[in-house]
Amino acid sequence: MKVINLDYLASNPLLPHVQEAMIEAIRKNYGNPSSQHQIGDKAATALAKAREQVARLINAPSEKEVVFTSGGTESVNHAVKGVAFANADKGKHIVTSNIEHNAVLRSLRALKMMDYKVTSVPVDSYGRVNPDDVAKAIKDDTILVTIMHSNNEIGTIQPLAEIARVTRERKVIFHCDAVDSVGVVPFDVQKLGVDLLSFAANQFYGPSGVGGLYIRRGTRIWPLIDGGVQENNKRAGTENLIGIIGMGVAAELAVRDMDARLLYARELKERLIRGLRARIDDIFINGHPEFSLPNLVSVSIRYIEGEGVVLMLDEEGIAVSTRSACAAGALQASHVLLSIGRDFADAQGTMVLTFGITTTEEDVDRFMDVLGRVVQTLRGMSPLYAKAKQAAASSARLAAAEGGIR
Amino acid sequence: MKVINLDYLASNPLLPHVQEAMIEAIRKNYGNPSSQHQIGDKAATALAKAREQVARLINAPSEKEVVFTSGGTESVNHAVKGVAFANADKGKHIVTSNIEHNAVLRSLRALKMMDYKVTSVPVDSYGRVNPDDVAKAIKDDTILVTIMHSNNEIGTIQPLAEIARVTRERKVIFHCDAVDSVGVVPFDVQKLGVDLLSFAANQFYGPSGVGGLYIRRGTRIWPLIDGGVQENNKRAGTENLIGIIGMGVAAELAVRDMDARLLYARELKERLIRGLRARIDDIFINGHPEFSLPNLVSVSIRYIEGEGVVLMLDEEGIAVSTRSACAAGALQASHVLLSIGRDFADAQGTMVLTFGITTTEEDVDRFMDVLGRVVQTLRGMSPLYAKAKQAAASSARLAAAEGGIR
Repeated sequence: MKVINLDYLASNPLLPHVQEAMIEAIRKNYGNPSSQHQIGDKAATALAKAREQVARLINAPSEKEVVFTSGGTESVNHAVKGVAFANADKGKHIVTSNIEHNAVLRSLRALKMMDYKVTSVPVDSYGRVNPDDVAKAIKDDTILVTIMHSNNEIGTIQPLAEIARVTRERKVIFHCDAVDSVGVVPFDVQKLGVDLLSFAANQFYGPSGVGGLYIRRGTRIWPLIDGGVQENNKRAGTENLIGIIGMGVAAELAVRDMDARLLYARELKERLIRGLRARIDDIFINGHPEFSLPNLVSVSIRYIEGEGVVLMLDEEGIAVSTRSACAAGALQASHVLLSIGRDFADAQGTMVLTFGITTTEEDVDRFMDVLGRVVQTLRGMSPLYAKAKQAAASSARLAAAEGGIR
Repeated sequence: MKVINLDYLASNPLLPHVQEAMIEAIRKNYGNPSSQHQIGDKAATALAKAREQVARLINAPSEKEVVFTSGGTESVNHAVKGVAFANADKGKHIVTSNIEHNAVLRSLRALKMMDYKVTSVPVDSYGRVNPDDVAKAIKDDTILVTIMHSNNEIGTIQPLAEIARVTRERKVIFHCDAVDSVGVVPFDVQKLGVDLLSFAANQFYGPSGVGGLYIRRGTRIWPLIDGGVQENNKRAGTENLIGIIGMGVAAELAVRDMDARLLYARELKERLIRGLRARIDDIFINGHPEFSLPNLVSVSIRYIEGEGVVLMLDEEGIAVSTRSACAAGALQASHVLLSIGRDFADAQGTMVLTFGITTTEEDVDRFMDVLGRVVQTLRGMSPLYAKAKQAAASSARLAAAEGGIR
C-alpha cells in the first residue's frame, strides 16, 4: 500500500537532485573546509557554493551573513540566547508572541531562569499579531523582539514588515523564526527588514539536521557554539558538509520552482478545504484565510480525538499530525489553538495537514474519503456527539413548531 | 598525483561501509523519528540502532545516556555551559587545564563574561595534568572539572581515572573532551568514571557534523539547544539522521577493528618518529612517549616556519597541519606548545601529523623524503640556522682543541 504523507512539516522528502548531490559529496570524501591544504580547498569551495545558494533564497545582501547550523532549532536558540547574552548590559527584556514554536518558548524559559523578563503579545482569532501591540510592549530595556513568520500549527503569516518597522524605529533587534516559511513562500530579508532569521533545509526538500541563521551585519550577538573560527567566527565546529551541500541544492531548486510549487500547493489546499467542508460537518479551518502558508491546512473536527484519528489513518497508510497534544505525549492542549480562541475539546480534535510536490489530488481525495469514514466511526461512539445532534434536532423541531405558531 | 593525507585529525575519510549506509539512508528518505505514524517509525528504529552502536563504543551503561549532537564542539559547549547554567545556584567556579581545545577555552571565555571563575591547572613537559593539582584547585563553589582525554596537538593522554577519583570524592561533575580519543583508542565511561563525555564521528571514519555527548544519569545539566523533546528531552531539533546512521556504523566498525587499527597506527608512528630523527637534525617529538595517541606525531623542527612547510608540502600533494598559528591566521604561538615549555620559535616550526587506516608505509616514507628536502631548502635560507651551525662547529673545534691540551 502506498503511504500517503500529509505530514510534510515533520520532514520533506529529499528531492532527487538533492539526493544526488549528497551522494556525490559522500563519494567525493571531502576534507575539512578549514584546512590549509588542497584537501581542504575543495571542501571550502563546496561550502562557499552552498552559502551563495542559500543567501539567494532569502536575498541576503552578502553570503557572509548566512551561518550554517544544525537546523531550525539551533538557529532559533542561537538568535534568542545569543542576543540575550550579548546585550545583557543594555537590558534583559524580550518581546515575543503567544503562538511561538517550542524552540522559542523553551529558549525563553531558559532565559527567564537567568532573570530575563518576557512580554508575550496576543494574537487575534486568525493568529495574527498586531504590530501596535509589539510597539506597546517594547520598553527601555527591551533588547530583542522574536516573532515567527508563519505558524507551524495554523499556517498564519504575520505582518512582518510592519513589525520590523516598529523594531527599527525603537532600535531593538528583531529575530524571526521563519522555519516554516523559508523555501516555501518567497522571502526577502532586505524587504522585510529582519535582523536575524532562522530557517531549516528540511522544509524545502533538503535534509534534516541542517539549517541557517541569517545575521544582519552589525547585529550584536554571541555564538551559541563556541570553539574554532568556522562560519565567519559565528558558529564553531566542523561543518556537516554533506548536509550543507544538500541544503544548497535544495535552496537553488526552491528559488527556481517557487512559483510552480506555490500554485500547486494552493490548488491542493483549496481542494482540501472544500472537500473537508463538504464531507464532514462541525469543523473549523484554523488560521488566516489569506495570510497563510499555502501548504498547510489546520482543521478542528468537533466531537473527536485527534490522537485517535492519527492512529486510525496510520492503519490505512495515511500519515498526518496532530498538534493537539504536546510532543511529550501529555494531554495538554495546543497553546496556539487556545490563543486563537479554540476551546480545549476543539484543540483535541485538531489535525495539521501539510503537503508538497509529491502529493497528488488522488492522495488528497483518498485521505478525505478515509477521514470521513473514520470521523463517522469515532463520532458514532461519542456520547457528546449524539447529545449535540439530539439537541440540534430538537431545537430545529422547536424552531419549526414555533414557526408554525407564529 | 596521489594526495597523501597526513592531516587525519581535520577529518577522517568515510569508510566504505559508512558511505553505503549513508547513501542507503538518503535513498530510503526516512521521515522524522518523532512522528507518531509509520513514516516516523522507521526513522525512530534507525535512530535507536545508531544509539546502541554508539553506546557500545564507549560502554555506556544505557543507550539513553547518549545524546546525538552536531559534533564534538557542540557536545563540549553543551557539557560546559549546560553544567554551568544548571548549577549556578551551587557555585560559579570551574577547573580546567592549560592545554584544552578552543571549544572548551572559548566556552569558558563566554562563561567568564557571565561572572564564572576558572582555574586552569598546568601540565608537565609531556603535557600531563597532575591529579593532585586538580584536587588542590577544587573549591567549595566548584561545579565542574573539564579536562580533555587526549590532546589534539601533541597527543598526550591524561590520567583520567585518577582525576575522576578526585572529582567523585569532591562531588564535582567531571566533563571530558574526548573528541580525539573516542573511536581511536579504547574508551570505557564506566571504568574511567566520567560524568560527561564529548566525542565526534569524524575522528573514527564517520561523517563531520555529527557527534555525541554521554550524560551520566542524574547529572545536573541544561540543554544547550532548547525546543522539542528529541534526544530524551536533552537536545532539541530534528535529528541529522543520515549523519547519525553513518556515525552508528562507524562506531560499530571502530569496536570491531580497534585492535588492528591500534597495532597498525603504532607501527606507522614508530616509523615516522624513527625516520624523522634519522633524516632531520634539531627536532623535538612533542608529547608523552607512552601515554599518547597512536595516530599522532607532533614534531617541532627548529629554524623553520611551519606555515612555509605546509605550503611547500601541499605543492607536492602532501597534506599536513600546523597548529603553530591559530586558525584565525594570527601569528600566535600554540598555547599547548608553550604550556609544555617550547619557546615561540619552536612552536612556529611545529607540525601535527595524523594518519589512519588508508595511510601506507610508502606514504610515510615519501612524506619524510619530501620533508627532508623542504627543511634543507628552508634552513638553507635561514640566517639563524647558519649561525647556529657555525656556533656548533666552532664549539666542536674548541672542544677538540681543548681536548688536545688536556
